[in-house]
Amino acid sequence: MLQKPRGTRDFLPEEMEQRREIEMRMRRVAGLFGYHEVLTPTFENQELYTIKSGEGIIGEMYTFEDKGGRKLALRPEGTAAILRMYVNEAKVLPKPIRWCYLLDCYRYERPQKGRYRQFWQFGSELIGADTAAGDAEIILLADGLLRAAGVRFSLQVGHLAPMKHILLDLGEEDKKRVMALLDKRSFDELEACLNDTGKPELYDKLTALIECTTIDEAKEVCGDFPGMERMEEMLGILDSQKLEYSLNLGIVRGLDYYTGMVFEGFAENLGAENQIIGGGSYRLAHLFGGEDTPSCGFGIGFDRVMVSRGEVELKRDPLVAILYTQEGQKRAFEVAGMLRREGIRTEINLLDRGVGAQMKHASRTAQYAVLIGKNEVESGTVTLKNLASGDQVECKLDDLPGEVR
Amino acid sequence: MLQKPRGTRDFLPEEMEQRREIEMRMRRVAGLFGYHEVLTPTFENQELYTIKSGEGIIGEMYTFEDKGGRKLALRPEGTAAILRMYVNEAKVLPKPIRWCYLLDCYRYERPQKGRYRQFWQFGSELIGADTAAGDAEIILLADGLLRAAGVRFSLQVGHLAPMKHILLDLGEEDKKRVMALLDKRSFDELEACLNDTGKPELYDKLTALIECTTIDEAKEVCGDFPGMERMEEMLGILDSQKLEYSLNLGIVRGLDYYTGMVFEGFAENLGAENQIIGGGSYRLAHLFGGEDTPSCGFGIGFDRVMVSRGEVELKRDPLVAILYTQEGQKRAFEVAGMLRREGIRTEINLLDRGVGAQMKHASRTAQYAVLIGKNEVESGTVTLKNLASGDQVECKLDDLPGEVR
Repeated sequence: MLQKPRGTRDFLPEEMEQRREIEMRMRRVAGLFGYHEVLTPTFENQELYTIKSGEGIIGEMYTFEDKGGRKLALRPEGTAAILRMYVNEAKVLPKPIRWCYLLDCYRYERPQKGRYRQFWQFGSELIGADTAAGDAEIILLADGLLRAAGVRFSLQVGHLAPMKHILLDLGEEDKKRVMALLDKRSFDELEACLNDTGKPELYDKLTALIECTTIDEAKEVCGDFPGMERMEEMLGILDSQKLEYSLNLGIVRGLDYYTGMVFEGFAENLGAENQIIGGGSYRLAHLFGGEDTPSCGFGIGFDRVMVSRGEVELKRDPLVAILYTQEGQKRAFEVAGMLRREGIRTEINLLDRGVGAQMKHASRTAQYAVLIGKNEVESGTVTLKNLASGDQVECKLDDLPGEVR
Repeated sequence: MLQKPRGTRDFLPEEMEQRREIEMRMRRVAGLFGYHEVLTPTFENQELYTIKSGEGIIGEMYTFEDKGGRKLALRPEGTAAILRMYVNEAKVLPKPIRWCYLLDCYRYERPQKGRYRQFWQFGSELIGADTAAGDAEIILLADGLLRAAGVRFSLQVGHLAPMKHILLDLGEEDKKRVMALLDKRSFDELEACLNDTGKPELYDKLTALIECTTIDEAKEVCGDFPGMERMEEMLGILDSQKLEYSLNLGIVRGLDYYTGMVFEGFAENLGAENQIIGGGSYRLAHLFGGEDTPSCGFGIGFDRVMVSRGEVELKRDPLVAILYTQEGQKRAFEVAGMLRREGIRTEINLLDRGVGAQMKHASRTAQYAVLIGKNEVESGTVTLKNLASGDQVECKLDDLPGEVR
């Protein structure tokens, strides 16, 4: 039997309906914040991703050549392509630009629980607002989206400014090494590395910084630092909106990419693979040929959202099943058409089978059955049966939509 | 400047909103017919497509190998994967199965007007209903979807039964050649081919058949034929529902795939590339390792739908822009949060700029502006300005949602 490719999924109607519902709720919240949906191609020139993330990403992507010998890649994440699109098509639009998107992304990794080779990301990007208010909005939007999706989660908000201040005297390469070790929480290696660089005293500062839970504590560790006021202003906005979050000044998320605010969110019920959102402020547009443009955004793991939130209870309109004998067939199609024009979901029998078998099928799929036989055609009436209660009424064709409602 | 790959598109908010609206309308109509949305992976094992369409399709697909050396392909169309999914996951479900889907598909062809390398298809498949009623439902659904999408189109309904009856005495290979030539309307070659096969008398019959506009004319050309009653029953249902279509017994759509009913639809305003839908009854499940299962379905070219229908007038909820001075910032975020909780789209200023510049920006994006300065914070009121009329009122915070509505 032919199978789907390893690490991919088929979505049957029940699951698809759930996903569409949550997708719609998230899109609606993004709309309430003034974010508009955009879409980029599924594949991009490979260069887009190597410029953003380095050659190392090639091993994690699905890559191929087109007939013109162009090296392409299925998108591994959303942000790069969205910023490429901004540079190509939207750099003249008034700032700030607020965009959101739901994209399927692709990673060539070992499939495991909660990790698929094709997965979905709901993201937002705020382009051209280099302010505390912009940083705060992105975090408030992320919170609003996850709440609308029905996830129970905790947010950790950080900022790279104090850490960069501590590491000010290190060279760029050493800074990267230190940040990477901090990101992995490899403290022994971190200590060794700082000894190597001749700045062993930074170790205590860094480990103290990542323990800070307030900005005042951070100031005690590293003194006043550039960007401190902006960070305070952002946290002030978040606090004034009573956002639930904890400050985590040990969030790194990659030195090259993020420039200031960084944040992450974790679902309460997902075990080890529980990160459900990550984001921050960054600059990418200039790497793709545009002007240097401050941006800020996040990606939400949509598949994890679906697992974490569990099943939604959906308000479903009732389904009417139309059953008929051969004499009633054309009338049956007519009644189906009439009900659908009234906005009533209607399924008509399509198999050569008796009314008994039709009724048995209907009782598994529908809430109402309408029976149309010779008598009904002659009298211009139909028999409507409530499949849950067993009650049935005979009514005129024109009254049927009303009876169903 | 980095560009999107050749033959692909970026969708900016205006276009995306239009597409989402039409997509939603089509999904709603499919739901009214009892069709449920499903989704398959973007790539499949190459074999799926070569089994269905022959090795020739490889040249038209985006193909690549995964790390395990598996040959994969981006889907060039929807039906094969949907039937593969049926065989894998749904063959035990009660029949008939009604599925719809909106898929992005990929073809490696020269980009030109109306043809893209990534394009979208809205399709439906009816699995397990080998009846005239099933054939009729699929055509009625197609008509309903295109109407809901707002396309002006004409439908041509055909059936392979009479043609197959005329070609009954030909060998399988000759039959394929003849049907292919008929499909291309290559009459000179068709005549030569029939002479070769020693059945020159079929030429007149075939050319007469494709001129038939009623089933009675078809009977005159080829006498009674197997499947005639079913075809009559199907057309009877379509006629009783007052469907607008023309009978075209020259529709071929590939002998190997379609088994009986075939149909096509053409948009009125698309010039040469005007085919907007194609479908028919077919059998595929057994090729993918399932039982032989009668099926029936179609694919609608979603991108062409969007071009053909032109712009939809959308009912947009008003957007409120919140402007503030520094003293009003936190209150401004609070008001934004309150309005959003009331379901009102609200955009807050994020740039360091004066109220005048904020107002100028708001007048380009929003319908209302709410101003929050020192006075408003102290008095607990806000000033609401209608940006179209210029009218403004001062109101209490609690009254603001009501004033906007």
